[in-house]
Amino acid sequence: MKSVRPEALDWSAENCTLGRAMEILGEKWTFIVLRELFMGLRRFDDLRVRTGIPRQVLTNRLAGLVDSGLLRREPYQEPGARAREEYRLTQAGLDLYPAIVALREWGDRYLGGPEGPPLLNAHRGCGELVHVSMRCEAGHEVTPREVEPRLGPGIRPRVTA
Amino acid sequence: MKSVRPEALDWSAENCTLGRAMEILGEKWTFIVLRELFMGLRRFDDLRVRTGIPRQVLTNRLAGLVDSGLLRREPYQEPGARAREEYRLTQAGLDLYPAIVALREWGDRYLGGPEGPPLLNAHRGCGELVHVSMRCEAGHEVTPREVEPRLGPGIRPRVTA
Repeated sequence: MKSVRPEALDWSAENCTLGRAMEILGEKWTFIVLRELFMGLRRFDDLRVRTGIPRQVLTNRLAGLVDSGLLRREPYQEPGARAREEYRLTQAGLDLYPAIVALREWGDRYLGGPEGPPLLNAHRGCGELVHVSMRCEAGHEVTPREVEPRLGPGIRPRVTA
Repeated sequence: MKSVRPEALDWSAENCTLGRAMEILGEKWTFIVLRELFMGLRRFDDLRVRTGIPRQVLTNRLAGLVDSGLLRREPYQEPGARAREEYRLTQAGLDLYPAIVALREWGDRYLGGPEGPPLLNAHRGCGELVHVSMRCEAGHEVTPREVEPRLGPGIRPRVTA
């Protein structure tokens, strides 16, 4: 069997933006909270009810997502109640939607039940179903095997000890 | 301020395929290992070198990804060395590529350095750069605000205590 030395070994993974993204997102509850915000939930008690996340854990996750710039707090007041804050997705948070939908579509495909997906996404404009895909700048739809990683301007050589 | 009760409160999150996907993927090292496999690495020692993951942690992560069906083990033998195993992405693993690329593009945008992204993706067929996008079945490119979640066949009512 031929042994091919992967070119990646010459390069550092230290400037990896996927790794940085996962420092923020790399545990289940963060995605679960984002899922609920994309479903239209905004309030602490509603988030508690739908997710079942313990109060203190949810408080910490929400504060972390605010610190990371994915959520912002917005004041609101119900008649007769004290002023409170709800949570809204920032532009950075909204821009995670393709990643969330891609993960959900993968889950639907490989981990779904026999009844089919619990949720679908529709295009508000025309009502047709929305999917995530990879596409090149020439307009071709691209499958995973057709993707070729290429070094970008931020690549750094690996420093060997 | 008007109070709108989100419809999601009526529905259970128990059949959530995003949640199930994140049970498998929900911590940073899993994505880091997948990143390296997408970069062409296959062997334990190479993975160790590029990721810096402690030996035992890497062993556990790889075994978990094999159990979850994302990787498979493939025997190989270097001349004069004992038979060993390398790791390859299964179809289920390959199909995570859009999610990985979506997360990396988000990281490039919001967490990248001034020099630009460390990696780009090219379409092997035509050489043009590849991006992830949301698109509806009528062919429209869809932004996060234009996505409307819709109940699917696997939705389950929330059972209130």
